[in-house]
Amino acid sequence: MRTSLLSLFLSFCFLVVFAQKENPRKEVIVEGLKRPWSMAFLSEDEVLVGEKEGGLVRINLSTKQKFPISGFPGDLADSVGLKGIGDNAGIFQVLTDPEFRRNKFIYVSYASGNGEGSTTRIIRAILDKDRMEKVQTLFVATPYTPERFHYGGGMVFGADGKLYFTIGERLFKEIDEPALPIAQNIEDRRGKIYRINPDGSIPADNPDFGPKAVPGLYATGIRAAQGIIVEPATKKIWFSEHGTFQGDEINMLRPRANYGWPVKTTGKYRSADYVPPVLDGNVYTPPVWYWLQTVAPTGLSFYTGDEFPSWKNDLIVPGLSWGSLWRFRIEGETVKSVEELFVDDRVRLRRVVQSPGGKLYLLTDEKNGKIIRVKNSRTLAGDGGKKPDQ
Amino acid sequence: MRTSLLSLFLSFCFLVVFAQKENPRKEVIVEGLKRPWSMAFLSEDEVLVGEKEGGLVRINLSTKQKFPISGFPGDLADSVGLKGIGDNAGIFQVLTDPEFRRNKFIYVSYASGNGEGSTTRIIRAILDKDRMEKVQTLFVATPYTPERFHYGGGMVFGADGKLYFTIGERLFKEIDEPALPIAQNIEDRRGKIYRINPDGSIPADNPDFGPKAVPGLYATGIRAAQGIIVEPATKKIWFSEHGTFQGDEINMLRPRANYGWPVKTTGKYRSADYVPPVLDGNVYTPPVWYWLQTVAPTGLSFYTGDEFPSWKNDLIVPGLSWGSLWRFRIEGETVKSVEELFVDDRVRLRRVVQSPGGKLYLLTDEKNGKIIRVKNSRTLAGDGGKKPDQ
Repeated sequence: MRTSLLSLFLSFCFLVVFAQKENPRKEVIVEGLKRPWSMAFLSEDEVLVGEKEGGLVRINLSTKQKFPISGFPGDLADSVGLKGIGDNAGIFQVLTDPEFRRNKFIYVSYASGNGEGSTTRIIRAILDKDRMEKVQTLFVATPYTPERFHYGGGMVFGADGKLYFTIGERLFKEIDEPALPIAQNIEDRRGKIYRINPDGSIPADNPDFGPKAVPGLYATGIRAAQGIIVEPATKKIWFSEHGTFQGDEINMLRPRANYGWPVKTTGKYRSADYVPPVLDGNVYTPPVWYWLQTVAPTGLSFYTGDEFPSWKNDLIVPGLSWGSLWRFRIEGETVKSVEELFVDDRVRLRRVVQSPGGKLYLLTDEKNGKIIRVKNSRTLAGDGGKKPDQ
Repeated sequence: MRTSLLSLFLSFCFLVVFAQKENPRKEVIVEGLKRPWSMAFLSEDEVLVGEKEGGLVRINLSTKQKFPISGFPGDLADSVGLKGIGDNAGIFQVLTDPEFRRNKFIYVSYASGNGEGSTTRIIRAILDKDRMEKVQTLFVATPYTPERFHYGGGMVFGADGKLYFTIGERLFKEIDEPALPIAQNIEDRRGKIYRINPDGSIPADNPDFGPKAVPGLYATGIRAAQGIIVEPATKKIWFSEHGTFQGDEINMLRPRANYGWPVKTTGKYRSADYVPPVLDGNVYTPPVWYWLQTVAPTGLSFYTGDEFPSWKNDLIVPGLSWGSLWRFRIEGETVKSVEELFVDDRVRLRRVVQSPGGKLYLLTDEKNGKIIRVKNSRTLAGDGGKKPDQ
């Protein structure tokens, strides 16, 4: 008995010495996806993927089988066949209801088109045998406009059971702003963050912006926010935002907050001639973090898995522009350190997402889009000789 | 006996769970230093500090007592009283001989002045009871020029017992380069890295740059390199280099390598009009890493202590410009990830240095310069309630 305890003890000594240094490695799980934007877990192995330039797909991560979801609304404005630089249209986030097992509700944000242009639409549907049934529109970020940029479309369920989502400002150049900038105008749906009930109705305890404000308004001054997530330990909501040149930010969501665009930015305006208006009485909420380089941060997640012990509760943020992965160590609402991972192996990343069991996955924004698992090679010593693509 | 083994085992379980997340904290050990540039350990508690705007000082890190070192050469060109922006003159690195206990040799790099201007000088002396005796000049980076920038002055002993040091290019604007740029001209001492014997003689096995080359030449194409260090595990030498706008780099030192300045840079030239010459036949060595923002990386060190287990063998790089601390995880010669530490508490840092016992220290580039110890608060739970300055 003493010998076995001793060997157990020595094993732990070994673990303590060798288990300290995280050694993240990428393993491609699925490829051939059309610029995947989001992934929602139906179980540890089954996911729903929203492809920006494709459709909704159910995928089994073990068998790699793909099953298209039918019944998507016909007003989808996608980027397929278009050559526009920076065209952002398509399918954005797919989310399951917190009570999905019981009610089968899914939520999808996408670019909806009509004769005048396109805008962000948010729908709810029942997922029945790989078909969307009873599709219901929860929100349309009117007006429809010709520009195909900055739809937003990030969605998350708060701990309060409400649906929070981001709507981008839809302008590419701030020089085209009206006198009262879009994101600062509470009568304009664009450039805002919203909070609604899962059926599309407006919660009675939403912040009060006055009678002229668009319904569901929760925060203003948004340029192009995509990633939005709940911090598991605190239930606070964090979101990422794209700047122009630099000005990429991580923000904490607060009711009634004004994040400042285009009056305040940590980046540079596209036009050196642009002079933002002075809006009396406004108080602007600064970001928790901003980069000094362009990152294009997107679908962020908090990590709570066991595979990377030193990453526990850290915020993981993927980037499109310089295609890498960032890890933020946070204490309260203060960023303490920022690690850029995979700097020798960059690829445009749209989303980081954790499985119910704590596995970490990445979605690549590529024509041949991939689902990549991030593994800690030290916990998988037996796999050391395998190529990541096998 | 089984009970005590079990409790030991449980202690280790506790360690495994709680010891994973590094929690670096700063503790000011000494302050009141005049822009400290370097620190050499005489023992675990006794250090020699070179103050850029002061002198050489012996300091006891336990008692905090400071003892000035006398006998410094009278040709020191310092920045005291000067108001020039970016004036870099003063005392740079102080280094002890690998055989210091036996021979008492110290090595100092500093800005030496004469009627024409200043340049980098490297001396050796015997440290005898806080006095420099038998001062011997090992190298002078002639010519003396009026500009007071980019002296270099980083020094390190290689595993081969040779003294390696950096000499900056001394120009502020590349538009002032001669037709054959200074750092590319093997007949000019500036903008180079050197390898000499500890007595100033030239090793017979130095790379051969031909008969016209300045003596001791080891590598070319340097703009403004300060930090230079041996990687303990591999004995490879790494150095940091300052770019202009961006272009800050980490490089690996190789004999005869040309690091490209000003022909190749990862940054932007100060003047948009500058067109670098095409130099036929040159092969340029790219950096191992470059930043997309200005960092001004300086006196780097590899970390081999036990206090931060997940940092073992990582390269730690301090920055002046955006005043923070960077940790590089490296495999072979590839950077795998880069973490910026203390992003909520930035200060201009000149040097990171590890004590013989593995403690990590920082030197701040401030008028009231400090020696700061980086502690891992999780391993010092009993100190948790103390203020860092006590």
